[in-house]
Amino acid sequence: MVPYFYFEIIYKSKKSRARVGRIHTPHGIIDTPGFVAVATNGSIKAVDSVMLEQLNQQLIFCNTYHMILHPGANTVAQAGGLHTFINRKQPIITDSGGFQVFSLAYGGVASELKSKGQKDIKNSVLKINENGVIFRSYRDGSLIELTPESSIVAQKKLGADIIIPLDELPPYHINQRALKRCLDRTHRWEKRSLEEHEKNKNNQAIYAVVHGGIDKELRAESCKVLSQLNFDGFAIGGSVGKNREEMIEMLHFTMPRLPEDKPNHLLGIADLPSIEQIIPLGIDTFDSSHPTKLARHGHLLTTQGTKKIEQVRWKHDFTPIDPSCSCYTCANYSIGYIHHLFKAHEATAHTLASIHNIAYMNLLMAEYRKKIIRGEI
Amino acid sequence: MVPYFYFEIIYKSKKSRARVGRIHTPHGIIDTPGFVAVATNGSIKAVDSVMLEQLNQQLIFCNTYHMILHPGANTVAQAGGLHTFINRKQPIITDSGGFQVFSLAYGGVASELKSKGQKDIKNSVLKINENGVIFRSYRDGSLIELTPESSIVAQKKLGADIIIPLDELPPYHINQRALKRCLDRTHRWEKRSLEEHEKNKNNQAIYAVVHGGIDKELRAESCKVLSQLNFDGFAIGGSVGKNREEMIEMLHFTMPRLPEDKPNHLLGIADLPSIEQIIPLGIDTFDSSHPTKLARHGHLLTTQGTKKIEQVRWKHDFTPIDPSCSCYTCANYSIGYIHHLFKAHEATAHTLASIHNIAYMNLLMAEYRKKIIRGEI
Repeated sequence: MVPYFYFEIIYKSKKSRARVGRIHTPHGIIDTPGFVAVATNGSIKAVDSVMLEQLNQQLIFCNTYHMILHPGANTVAQAGGLHTFINRKQPIITDSGGFQVFSLAYGGVASELKSKGQKDIKNSVLKINENGVIFRSYRDGSLIELTPESSIVAQKKLGADIIIPLDELPPYHINQRALKRCLDRTHRWEKRSLEEHEKNKNNQAIYAVVHGGIDKELRAESCKVLSQLNFDGFAIGGSVGKNREEMIEMLHFTMPRLPEDKPNHLLGIADLPSIEQIIPLGIDTFDSSHPTKLARHGHLLTTQGTKKIEQVRWKHDFTPIDPSCSCYTCANYSIGYIHHLFKAHEATAHTLASIHNIAYMNLLMAEYRKKIIRGEI
Repeated sequence: MVPYFYFEIIYKSKKSRARVGRIHTPHGIIDTPGFVAVATNGSIKAVDSVMLEQLNQQLIFCNTYHMILHPGANTVAQAGGLHTFINRKQPIITDSGGFQVFSLAYGGVASELKSKGQKDIKNSVLKINENGVIFRSYRDGSLIELTPESSIVAQKKLGADIIIPLDELPPYHINQRALKRCLDRTHRWEKRSLEEHEKNKNNQAIYAVVHGGIDKELRAESCKVLSQLNFDGFAIGGSVGKNREEMIEMLHFTMPRLPEDKPNHLLGIADLPSIEQIIPLGIDTFDSSHPTKLARHGHLLTTQGTKKIEQVRWKHDFTPIDPSCSCYTCANYSIGYIHHLFKAHEATAHTLASIHNIAYMNLLMAEYRKKIIRGEI
């Protein structure tokens, strides 16, 4: 019997840890290295599911936190699961919900970096203990308990192809002892998650979340502990450093400590300079809302560099955004028209720009796969 | 030789002035009675041109005022005209730009009705005289002169299938003498427009704008004057009354005074109760942003009545918005998902709702055409 989830490595680079692979899931293949688009609420911002499938965006990331707040995991289950609810045939990955809850507790990553580590547990997060987290829904004020088990149960209801266990996300500014305590708890939570998952695998894969901040000893420990468990892949999580240098240094150290035969995902990072550096380190997939956010801000990714669409230089250019792109936007509209739509504050501007940037990311991924096979990476 | 523009009447009602027809244009047919969607800046709000053509939205209305302010008529001409610029193969109608300029002068229709006729010529409109109007661009502060001739020249550059001459839009609260002065000037402007148009027909049709407010004598005069000129159709403009009753009464009086063999357009009105009353009076097309505005506010038009999408009753309904609709939205998504997208403030909500409401309007038009042929109207 063919397993419902497996990672096929097609080519391994001889000069780096980069590899070209295929993640096989019940909803089809994910070619790696592969960009993962973020559909927080079950929709990529400004692009509907059917359009997205035409773009062959093979994997999307939905946020359990948002989905449990609205419409609720039970509602999605009633609809027949996330794929049916949002009308998507291709693979989906969901996270645990922990990232957003701990962001509520400690502030977002950026604000926390700026605040120099002052904890500010806001009213919305009422309790963090060994059992899990209790927080208040910003929608209706109801109390919601997120535990390793309840997150897995919610993700079973959502029915994504790949799920992620609950982790305790420590703030960036934390001493090593506290970070170690966090790490140990996260490992205990991951084991509980795996046990909950194994009660009802539901044709879903589960990735471990590797933690340890930028502490090498703790990252090594996390790799060791989690590699011994029966996870289907690894997501690099926790604090990945305050800047790209720290992140790359951490990944240099971490990646060789993970099993070579399982897929690796980097959580929340997919800017172009980072991608260039993480692929040679053996990262297979990476999610970020960055390319679609750039699109909505009028920054269009092209083979000729980033084009700022609101610049007057594009007003009289009636060629496509990128002459070498064949996406829906480039096939149908000129950069001059997209410029006009941005200037006129038309909503279609965001849609057409987002479509293009997603298409660009996928073209770029295909290029990276070719480069690896040609021995250039 | 087949003329580039002609109106074919397929069926005339025996019990009203309603008729089923086809307006033939260089960019294809417009079935009448037909709803005209409004694409102010060269884009229906939240729906791109290619999607719109899939919906078979046969005629769209673009606003010359907006297009001359950005990107400018010359830019559109450089792109190859409006059809090429926005990538639309089907027919387009443009207005003169006058409506917006006179709205700047007298305030919008609604605010003017509320203000009881106090003139408030704002800074942006600097001069209104026999020659035309001078106003200031809100974009770059430049002075723009809109005359009957310059509006036609701009509309030649835009290249819509149907164009409209500049009219002087009087405020609703105006005495008969002033209204008569306005009417006479509008008629002189329309004659000048027609002369300008005839210098270079450019395969475009030109509709007269019938004026006279709710004054029967003046409406009768307007019909008489304009019917004698070589216009290709008639647009009912000017003040059409402060409520639906006044409008219907005015149309009852006006419509029999227009030639039967030319198409009639009602400017700016396309709410469902009005449509029901204007079709039997012989109105063939009518434009309004109302259906797409309703969509963005979550009011979905269906054969079962208007559904307010944000009501909790739709949360667990996984059937289409309208089971008898086969539009892109209804074919691909449930009302429960659209409800979720609205609740989550996702931009796709506006797109999918707008697609549906436009599809509904076109289905409704097909129904009206059938009803006329069946002798029910």
